[in-house]
Amino acid sequence: MPREFDQFTITDEVIDRFKNTPNPRLKQLMEAVVRHAHALVQETQLTETEWSFAIDFLTRTGQTCSDRRQEFILLSDTLGISMLVDAINNAVPAGATQSTVLGPFFVQDAPVAQNNSRIDLDDDHGGQPLYAEATFTDLQGNPIESAKVDVWHSDEQGNYDIQYGPDASLTRRARFVTGKDGRVTFWTSLPAAYPIPYDGPVGQMLAAANRHPWRPAHLHYMVDAPGFKHLTTHIFVNGDQYLESDAVFGVKKSLVDDFPERPAGTAPDGSIVDRPYRHLVWHFKLPRLDQMLPGASAAPTSRSSPTG
Amino acid sequence: MPREFDQFTITDEVIDRFKNTPNPRLKQLMEAVVRHAHALVQETQLTETEWSFAIDFLTRTGQTCSDRRQEFILLSDTLGISMLVDAINNAVPAGATQSTVLGPFFVQDAPVAQNNSRIDLDDDHGGQPLYAEATFTDLQGNPIESAKVDVWHSDEQGNYDIQYGPDASLTRRARFVTGKDGRVTFWTSLPAAYPIPYDGPVGQMLAAANRHPWRPAHLHYMVDAPGFKHLTTHIFVNGDQYLESDAVFGVKKSLVDDFPERPAGTAPDGSIVDRPYRHLVWHFKLPRLDQMLPGASAAPTSRSSPTG
Repeated sequence: MPREFDQFTITDEVIDRFKNTPNPRLKQLMEAVVRHAHALVQETQLTETEWSFAIDFLTRTGQTCSDRRQEFILLSDTLGISMLVDAINNAVPAGATQSTVLGPFFVQDAPVAQNNSRIDLDDDHGGQPLYAEATFTDLQGNPIESAKVDVWHSDEQGNYDIQYGPDASLTRRARFVTGKDGRVTFWTSLPAAYPIPYDGPVGQMLAAANRHPWRPAHLHYMVDAPGFKHLTTHIFVNGDQYLESDAVFGVKKSLVDDFPERPAGTAPDGSIVDRPYRHLVWHFKLPRLDQMLPGASAAPTSRSSPTG
Repeated sequence: MPREFDQFTITDEVIDRFKNTPNPRLKQLMEAVVRHAHALVQETQLTETEWSFAIDFLTRTGQTCSDRRQEFILLSDTLGISMLVDAINNAVPAGATQSTVLGPFFVQDAPVAQNNSRIDLDDDHGGQPLYAEATFTDLQGNPIESAKVDVWHSDEQGNYDIQYGPDASLTRRARFVTGKDGRVTFWTSLPAAYPIPYDGPVGQMLAAANRHPWRPAHLHYMVDAPGFKHLTTHIFVNGDQYLESDAVFGVKKSLVDDFPERPAGTAPDGSIVDRPYRHLVWHFKLPRLDQMLPGASAAPTSRSSPTG
């Protein structure tokens, strides 16, 4: 017999069609997706023209993605979804370093670098020199050995390396592995504030909402150490005009540093610098997995970029 | 000053960021999107792995779209969203023909055909001949002249023309324009039930939910006539095993017909048929725009395909 549904019965019917989903978590997620999507349509009395625009917007968002651009992450970021997922999954014990968004510019398999090396070679987009010192310890201050530490950041123009086209070489990004002292140190240039890419659908959304696309200047760190909670975070440069209105809601007060200026002369690593430079000293404290709050996710792969 | 948000404050902050949206309807829609997306994440306590999967799923859905395939419409259809939008926007007065989903196989600018012509030429995928007669009138039975009527349907294997590759010629689809009698008549072949395309992300979702991808056999009609409510609908073939479980929830009882079989001989248009054929006679009744219920959308372009 034919069966038909109207606007008052269809939601329950769609949810019922997911009743044989073998994976109970997937069943729960699909039911929630259906319930909220239908409630959104009902509440707004969505028109067919608006539905059609939404289909086209999502299609263009998907087609803007490439192996060097992830427009759906930008959409998630600018709608505060990424930071909400981060908040839910990364509650950490007092004293531990806080996390923030991954962002769309992470690249797997960045060049491996040694302590005190320069990671901003190979281009001419650099600004003021920056010497960044970081120590990675547990919550009691014991150094973490063999931690894999990825760093990446924008240049003085606010661009990441991969924004210079498919053939651009990787720079201002590197992977370090800590030794017994748990330290990672390198030379680079001071990151600048930048707009998230706004020449695509997400940029059109921001423009239609009179929202600016800017993020305050920051340095990305991602840390994986055996037995410790995975950490994806930034250190923000204090004084940036966008600390109050980060387009992706990623700022946390505990992650802001002055990046103080030092005079020309002998740097902490013994090298001679011929002009004033900036100096970041940061102590990252990671909880051990057995110190994590119940329900917080610990999977080290969980923040990896789907852009591969 | 830096400002930070946690899982309890971020939703209000994101909504606040849309406060300067000039278009009040867009502001309302974005607030609803943010509120429901955040509630979905909160309720399910979405993990980072699940978030990452969702980003990847949406990306693949967008990248599966082409000018001959619209995977986001399939997603909307299989989640019952399309039929909900249809139900909200197409409430019609008693006696008027009901609407149903557009589906992903509509093509703009189909070949123009004359009454009594065959529209299933140019391929060998046909089944039993079908003679389809339709009359288009207002609710009082007065014929509608100059109505543009698009028809399209699957072949005996359950495929649409455009599923045979980018170079396939258009067939089993046509556009007619009614004369003074408001009639559209043509020869074609009986449509068959078919699975929606399930080799992409939407097919993976259905498989993961143990849902079948089948739609009961049907003939699409889309009607635009000056001064009348736009109509997008199907006529379903009675007896089809999928009338109870249409993968896209599109069936309405008032749109089912027996497509009765007629013996070989002289057909209604005077032509001689050498074997038994099927016969559809349907009376489409369209409300005039001034007969529409308040709030129902009337824009004739509103059901046009975003696939162009």
